Amino acid sequence: MYFWKPSAMPVLSVICDSSEDRARTGRDRYGYKDYVFDWKDLVKRDDVDLVDVGTPNFLHKDVSIAAMRNGKHVYCEKPLALNAKEAKEMLDEARKRRVVHAVGYNNRCLPAVVMAKNLIEEGHIGEVINCRAEYLQDWAISPLVPMEWRLDKKAAGSGALGDIGSHAIDLARFLVGEFEEVLAVSRTLVKERPISELSMLGGGKVSGKDVSGRREKVGVDDSVEFLARFEDGAAGLFHASRFSHGRKNTLAFEIYGSKGSLVFSSESMCELRFYSTGDAEGLQGFKTIKMGRQHPYGEAFWPLADSGMGYADLKSIEISALMDAISGKGKVSADFEDGYRAMLICDAVIESADTKEWVAIQKGD
Amino acid sequence: MYFWKPSAMPVLSVICDSSEDRARTGRDRYGYKDYVFDWKDLVKRDDVDLVDVGTPNFLHKDVSIAAMRNGKHVYCEKPLALNAKEAKEMLDEARKRRVVHAVGYNNRCLPAVVMAKNLIEEGHIGEVINCRAEYLQDWAISPLVPMEWRLDKKAAGSGALGDIGSHAIDLARFLVGEFEEVLAVSRTLVKERPISELSMLGGGKVSGKDVSGRREKVGVDDSVEFLARFEDGAAGLFHASRFSHGRKNTLAFEIYGSKGSLVFSSESMCELRFYSTGDAEGLQGFKTIKMGRQHPYGEAFWPLADSGMGYADLKSIEISALMDAISGKGKVSADFEDGYRAMLICDAVIESADTKEWVAIQKGD
Amino acid sequence: MYFWKPSAMPVLSVICDSSEDRARTGRDRYGYKDYVFDWKDLVKRDDVDLVDVGTPNFLHKDVSIAAMRNGKHVYCEKPLALNAKEAKEMLDEARKRRVVHAVGYNNRCLPAVVMAKNLIEEGHIGEVINCRAEYLQDWAISPLVPMEWRLDKKAAGSGALGDIGSHAIDLARFLVGEFEEVLAVSRTLVKERPISELSMLGGGKVSGKDVSGRREKVGVDDSVEFLARFEDGAAGLFHASRFSHGRKNTLAFEIYGSKGSLVFSSESMCELRFYSTGDAEGLQGFKTIKMGRQHPYGEAFWPLADSGMGYADLKSIEISALMDAISGKGKVSADFEDGYRAMLICDAVIESADTKEWVAIQKGD
Amino acid sequence: MYFWKPSAMPVLSVICDSSEDRARTGRDRYGYKDYVFDWKDLVKRDDVDLVDVGTPNFLHKDVSIAAMRNGKHVYCEKPLALNAKEAKEMLDEARKRRVVHAVGYNNRCLPAVVMAKNLIEEGHIGEVINCRAEYLQDWAISPLVPMEWRLDKKAAGSGALGDIGSHAIDLARFLVGEFEEVLAVSRTLVKERPISELSMLGGGKVSGKDVSGRREKVGVDDSVEFLARFEDGAAGLFHASRFSHGRKNTLAFEIYGSKGSLVFSSESMCELRFYSTGDAEGLQGFKTIKMGRQHPYGEAFWPLADSGMGYADLKSIEISALMDAISGKGKVSADFEDGYRAMLICDAVIESADTKEWVAIQKGD
Repeated sequence: MYFWKPSAMPVLSVICDSSEDRARTGRDRYGYKDYVFDWKDLVKRDDVDLVDVGTPNFLHKDVSIAAMRNGKHVYCEKPLALNAKEAKEMLDEARKRRVVHAVGYNNRCLPAVVMAKNLIEEGHIGEVINCRAEYLQDWAISPLVPMEWRLDKKAAGSGALGDIGSHAIDLARFLVGEFEEVLAVSRTLVKERPISELSMLGGGKVSGKDVSGRREKVGVDDSVEFLARFEDGAAGLFHASRFSHGRKNTLAFEIYGSKGSLVFSSESMCELRFYSTGDAEGLQGFKTIKMGRQHPYGEAFWPLADSGMGYADLKSIEISALMDAISGKGKVSADFEDGYRAMLICDAVIESADTKEWVAIQKGD
Repeated sequence: MYFWKPSAMPVLSVICDSSEDRARTGRDRYGYKDYVFDWKDLVKRDDVDLVDVGTPNFLHKDVSIAAMRNGKHVYCEKPLALNAKEAKEMLDEARKRRVVHAVGYNNRCLPAVVMAKNLIEEGHIGEVINCRAEYLQDWAISPLVPMEWRLDKKAAGSGALGDIGSHAIDLARFLVGEFEEVLAVSRTLVKERPISELSMLGGGKVSGKDVSGRREKVGVDDSVEFLARFEDGAAGLFHASRFSHGRKNTLAFEIYGSKGSLVFSSESMCELRFYSTGDAEGLQGFKTIKMGRQHPYGEAFWPLADSGMGYADLKSIEISALMDAISGKGKVSADFEDGYRAMLICDAVIESADTKEWVAIQKGD
Repeated sequence: MYFWKPSAMPVLSVICDSSEDRARTGRDRYGYKDYVFDWKDLVKRDDVDLVDVGTPNFLHKDVSIAAMRNGKHVYCEKPLALNAKEAKEMLDEARKRRVVHAVGYNNRCLPAVVMAKNLIEEGHIGEVINCRAEYLQDWAISPLVPMEWRLDKKAAGSGALGDIGSHAIDLARFLVGEFEEVLAVSRTLVKERPISELSMLGGGKVSGKDVSGRREKVGVDDSVEFLARFEDGAAGLFHASRFSHGRKNTLAFEIYGSKGSLVFSSESMCELRFYSTGDAEGLQGFKTIKMGRQHPYGEAFWPLADSGMGYADLKSIEISALMDAISGKGKVSADFEDGYRAMLICDAVIESADTKEWVAIQKGD
Repeated sequence: MYFWKPSAMPVLSVICDSSEDRARTGRDRYGYKDYVFDWKDLVKRDDVDLVDVGTPNFLHKDVSIAAMRNGKHVYCEKPLALNAKEAKEMLDEARKRRVVHAVGYNNRCLPAVVMAKNLIEEGHIGEVINCRAEYLQDWAISPLVPMEWRLDKKAAGSGALGDIGSHAIDLARFLVGEFEEVLAVSRTLVKERPISELSMLGGGKVSGKDVSGRREKVGVDDSVEFLARFEDGAAGLFHASRFSHGRKNTLAFEIYGSKGSLVFSSESMCELRFYSTGDAEGLQGFKTIKMGRQHPYGEAFWPLADSGMGYADLKSIEISALMDAISGKGKVSADFEDGYRAMLICDAVIESADTKEWVAIQKGD
């Protein structure tokens, strides 16, 4: 319990998995009180106040809306839905029901990212000129990597774009501002995949042999590059790919402003690199700032900087903000409006890749 | 619960703190069932099987021995005791009582460190020629940092040497082998400190002013450098310091062997740098290997590499091994013998700094 | 004299500068035999075999063509001309006259770049999927930086694009192959500049005050971002900017292929980072290869790797190739055809920024 | 000619090599007017004002003293002599003859090193607490690397210690101050080497096979580690080795002071890393400062930072200072007194490795 005292204390009530076996194991492993195997049962339960929607993307809308209709708060994984239209329905429902709604753009919670946000807002880098952001992985390169829902357009909506690129999009919105228009190149590099008894291991490793010989068409993008213009005049370069050998899970950005620059990579998750023209001449250079006690959330985590941060730690920040929001004492890190706006941008990226034209981002509402 | 199914499931029974207020808060915050404020009560309780000794160093021996005499398993923080003599008593008791005994040299659990160990054992770097290891911090540089038990010889035994240097010593024993002799320079750089209403913040920052004007002599080392010879002929360069500006919490080593080299720094905790003469000529270079699913403990943590690792994650590895040991299915990461041998080396370092002569490490038994 | 014995020995005959004073100083400082102050005199001289055209861009064509018409070999700075049309005239002349013609894309000579080329050609990274390349500087950010020819469209043709972006374009052609089409965002961020007694110092520092108050419109781009498709199917992300604080002179690329990746930055000019799926599982990672004796040109430079490389060293490689070409024993690093093709791409980038549409690269001939 | 106008213009008069063939090639390759093959002829010549002594170490004394007796200025390679006694004779002669005397500790000329010196002198890091310095190479690890003068005690005096370690010692003297005492571990790791038709390539690679079977004992150290105390109370950790795989030619230091820290490695020769407690809280971190126009010697080299620096560039700084000294307008980078004091420290290191006791550095005079 890093954040003490919490504004609300989460209780693990019910876990849901369509496989009873997995549901029961989940209950035991993570300490839930009960399990179900139909999400429709879960969203109605009296002992549930908050539903954490961690399903494949195609179910986000139905589960979230059902939960909200039952008066539950909802935390939904990203991307918020298969497309902006669905996301808008979810947002509308959330607004109507006045429940707390959060979307899992957890990288906004990274201390170094929050520090970047603060430095920008305080004017440390002046006006933003460029933003380059990327989220690169390499697990899908082998054509032997079998079909799974993340590679299936019906289940996922898009590929690298929604799954990881939307994190980069969300951070750019968070740090730089709203997008004006985008133009993209999108490619499906491995066009069909085995339907498979093969089980996928980490990093794109595949065990066993593909004995079935059956193949399914991959509908989603493996790699997307796009240019963006922001409303305030900045320009953006984005790249999301599951085909970048050596990049295991790298979310990175470089933001150049009129007075300084900020560089971040999740490969060094607790560091922010900052170049400031406020430094004395001859003493200017990128400074590597290690997140520690005096940085965002630092008191909760680290008596000393350079003590590391794991995925669970990051999640605990997100959950702490969620508890604050439910208690009426704060805001979630990213809400359904953020989720919806990211989907508007994703939809525009997909359209521009098809039409080969600049596509303006819908203003939403 | 990263490691599933665990060989034993820890239950948080009783927490102890000399302050009732802190004890109660601890119980609530971390979810213990009960609290006490005298450790003598804790070590006797029937609902306690394992005692985690996280007191200041001077209490390690008494608490651990009392716990073992009551048949409890013991996990004791490092350094194991104030000196090797005390540590030997603890080890003797542990052997006599046949309980599980562990010492908190948790850096042995780091996936990159375990991978280094494996590479060395498999001969990837040949015979070790040199080992440089350091543990550097900077929190104690300000003379305003007030006295606390870590700066008090009676409570801590030594300063940077035992507190952090012993981690570097332990890793050198783990990776390279036993020490033959050492020669050290040891300095107390700030010779007295305020006894203080001041409260210490992270990174050596101090809030408020020192109004009392009272000072106490600092008895422990702030910075220790030493040379070592290993039994197998390797040479070592060590440095432990709380006075290294910019190094917040850096445990690092470089090991050069006859066939390759290994470089590690906790500043990039999930990376191991490996130079191999086995690589083709012209293609040799330090390779940065990111810990992922196929590396030690990786399956428990990461679907993808580069997902970070926090202090709590590291602890969970240590505890998993401890549960295995208690269940008779494995070994602790480091036991009281490791704790004792590290103390023998620390004692020799202190002696050699005093006498300015090489001091052979006692063979122990 | 790194390359011994050279195929031809350059003799410094005549230096030309429109200012007699500078011409004379140049002669003395660099050891030329004579000086002139009209380039028309230089290109005719009998004691000149090779003309090095280091003028502002708008003169490249006239000087080069005149030199070639007098039978001289020509080494011309990049970009080859103000636009592709001019460049084509130069190339046509060169072909007609059968002289040696070289353009100053000297980064092709970097040992690490040549090594990258070799690794790609030998199949080490498989098929190229993505290429990101950038050339970033920060000297022009201050609005006090006065007008100079590099900021003047008539004299320079374009701004960051031709001056530095064309290096990135040339390396992408060298390493990945021909471009198919581009789409760009181009911006002039400081729209007018002082005409000025101010003298510009390094890194965008300006001494003195702008007393004149006169301003001139800046016609060229300060920052250009563009997407590219390559003929072989790869996609590219490019950025050229003089407005990237902290990037003093950074030419960098990342190339991701189906079997591995290559990463280079001029910030570590003598290193190439290489990720290979040919490495054993669990031992894969980016390897930092230090250019040394067994790498391209290494024997000429380094008894040991990690001995540094300066701009003059790089130039000596380029000149050595030029001497070889003149002696009929080799090829220049980049010739007028390379210069012309880079101009075709630059022209397409400019057009696409204007029309906001994808522009196909002319095939040239 | 980077430095213009030079205070004196060097003329390449006579080159000397014991092999006439090499002498003639050297003359042609480097543009000398004449050559000789006995150094005794060279030191007497009227057309020689300055003798550059680049022989194996055992000849430094005789050549230098003969040159000085003939009134020549002398630039002598490092280490200055086989031992401090010889070095003292050279220094005495230099003082008597009032010639300019320089020793090739050229790393003092590195812009980043000079900047470090300036920052320390201006108090930016406060009092120095620790200095760690190392010079590591890996060319000698293979037992097939044949005997050469650098491995022969009679010709070289010492091994890694004098050849490369003395650079680290010299920089520590330059940056931190005089040494008080040292204690060392020294090892000859490959105890005999082939006398050989084998020719040594870069990086310890050897071509051909050792057919002779003849072996010679290696008398010099391959790796030396030592502790030092400085006169002003700082402590030092040093390492010089030719057995550090992956370190091709790495001279590095870390200096920790009471107010900040400086980190340098020749692997990034034009960068200095600086941590300053003068930076605002929360914004402290190691800053990577790129050497550019406003840094030491920068105006001579770089219109823009990050343009690289080669060995020849570094040499040109050293020679510029030498020309200034000869012209009475400046001082050499390091003189025979520096050379002598480094030898005193080397001798103490050797003695302490033998006696296993701390050895005080002779005060010299």
